[in-house]
Amino acid sequence: MNNKPTLYTSLSPALLNLYDLNNSVVVIIDVFRATSTIASALYNGAKCVIPVDSVPKAIEISRSIGGIAAGERDGKIADGLEHGNSPLEYTREFVEGRTLVLTTTNGTRLLHMALERGAETIISGSFPNLSAVVDYLASKGKNVVLGCAGWKDRFNLEDTLFAGAVIHRLKKHFTIHCDSSLMAEQMYTKHKNNLIDFAPKLTHYHRLVERFGLIDDIRYCLTPDLANVLPEYKEGRLTCV
Amino acid sequence: MNNKPTLYTSLSPALLNLYDLNNSVVVIIDVFRATSTIASALYNGAKCVIPVDSVPKAIEISRSIGGIAAGERDGKIADGLEHGNSPLEYTREFVEGRTLVLTTTNGTRLLHMALERGAETIISGSFPNLSAVVDYLASKGKNVVLGCAGWKDRFNLEDTLFAGAVIHRLKKHFTIHCDSSLMAEQMYTKHKNNLIDFAPKLTHYHRLVERFGLIDDIRYCLTPDLANVLPEYKEGRLTCV
Repeated sequence: MNNKPTLYTSLSPALLNLYDLNNSVVVIIDVFRATSTIASALYNGAKCVIPVDSVPKAIEISRSIGGIAAGERDGKIADGLEHGNSPLEYTREFVEGRTLVLTTTNGTRLLHMALERGAETIISGSFPNLSAVVDYLASKGKNVVLGCAGWKDRFNLEDTLFAGAVIHRLKKHFTIHCDSSLMAEQMYTKHKNNLIDFAPKLTHYHRLVERFGLIDDIRYCLTPDLANVLPEYKEGRLTCV
Repeated sequence: MNNKPTLYTSLSPALLNLYDLNNSVVVIIDVFRATSTIASALYNGAKCVIPVDSVPKAIEISRSIGGIAAGERDGKIADGLEHGNSPLEYTREFVEGRTLVLTTTNGTRLLHMALERGAETIISGSFPNLSAVVDYLASKGKNVVLGCAGWKDRFNLEDTLFAGAVIHRLKKHFTIHCDSSLMAEQMYTKHKNNLIDFAPKLTHYHRLVERFGLIDDIRYCLTPDLANVLPEYKEGRLTCV
């Protein structure tokens, strides 16, 4: 008899509706860069991160609570905002004790989708908080859906590699009957010792590095446990569990 | 200056709308088993294959033209039909000179989606006709979208591995800026010398082999060039180019 919880990987927000989220922990994964930025800000002492779906909303909410309005569209700081979606921007000096109101192209949208579809628990993950995510999922013993944010509904490899990293560490604890998860783990296993060398092959790398010079961001986003906190979404905000 | 045509891989029918099909050759890929069966039937002399989206339509059309009504739902012969979706069923003795009217869970649906979305040319591919697909795409010099049929919109690995096999042979001829294609080729490269040994890890393998004992089908569907014809869809039917 197999009483292990299930684990599935959704490779794109456009595929999230194929999975039952009701009794599941959903992990929002947007490695470049929303969920890396969320980990970084909370690790450096931000009170919370409020993910919102538009720039005007980010400005309005941040004004009303004295927070930091931040976000990107198509990889660069969104028009009307002063702060972007770089995890390196949110140092302790800047962010400690403050609230970040964040809007991004893919990650915040996926988070709202998971919420609307009735996810029991929503957490966010990226390499900087890999171990915190793994430890949490192992301890909970609930069904898991790893939700890759992708890029405008397209599959991307960096989110898949993070899903693979989680699966690689956790697979003994779960029933995994899912080709997406099998592929994710095999891709991670292939590249785990050279993630940063592999990055130049990714479409998103070109978007961020060739256009915006964000190589340090890429390195941060692919390095495990630099900001090892567990952001959980509850009542409209992400805070550390 | 780079004048090479582009190549993209759509990992699920639910992602096909992300790609511009208008000036493209779309390859419909449903390895287990629709596009393997199509190759097999045409290789063995079937006049043509008419893909339809329902069992009643398959029965109606096959009656009116004296064809063979065939198809599956959820991996087994559809209720009301006598013939299924096994490539091994369509021997030369059975199928030569006849028309197959075929309805399947995933492959025929994807074909109709590509048609509705304005694909310039639609061909079908699986391992049994790998070389024919590769040679055709290389000679055409048009943009290509490799369309994986998946399973009820879920990603599956066998279709992705076939996409990877095509990319592995063709990548020098195309501009490929697509993480799905990069992943597909890497997964294919990893498993190309042991596809049949890898098959038991696939979700669809369990569906077909454990429930229906179709191991010979699996072997056929994963073996290159056993039925090396090029099925093209035109005016409602697939015929050999």
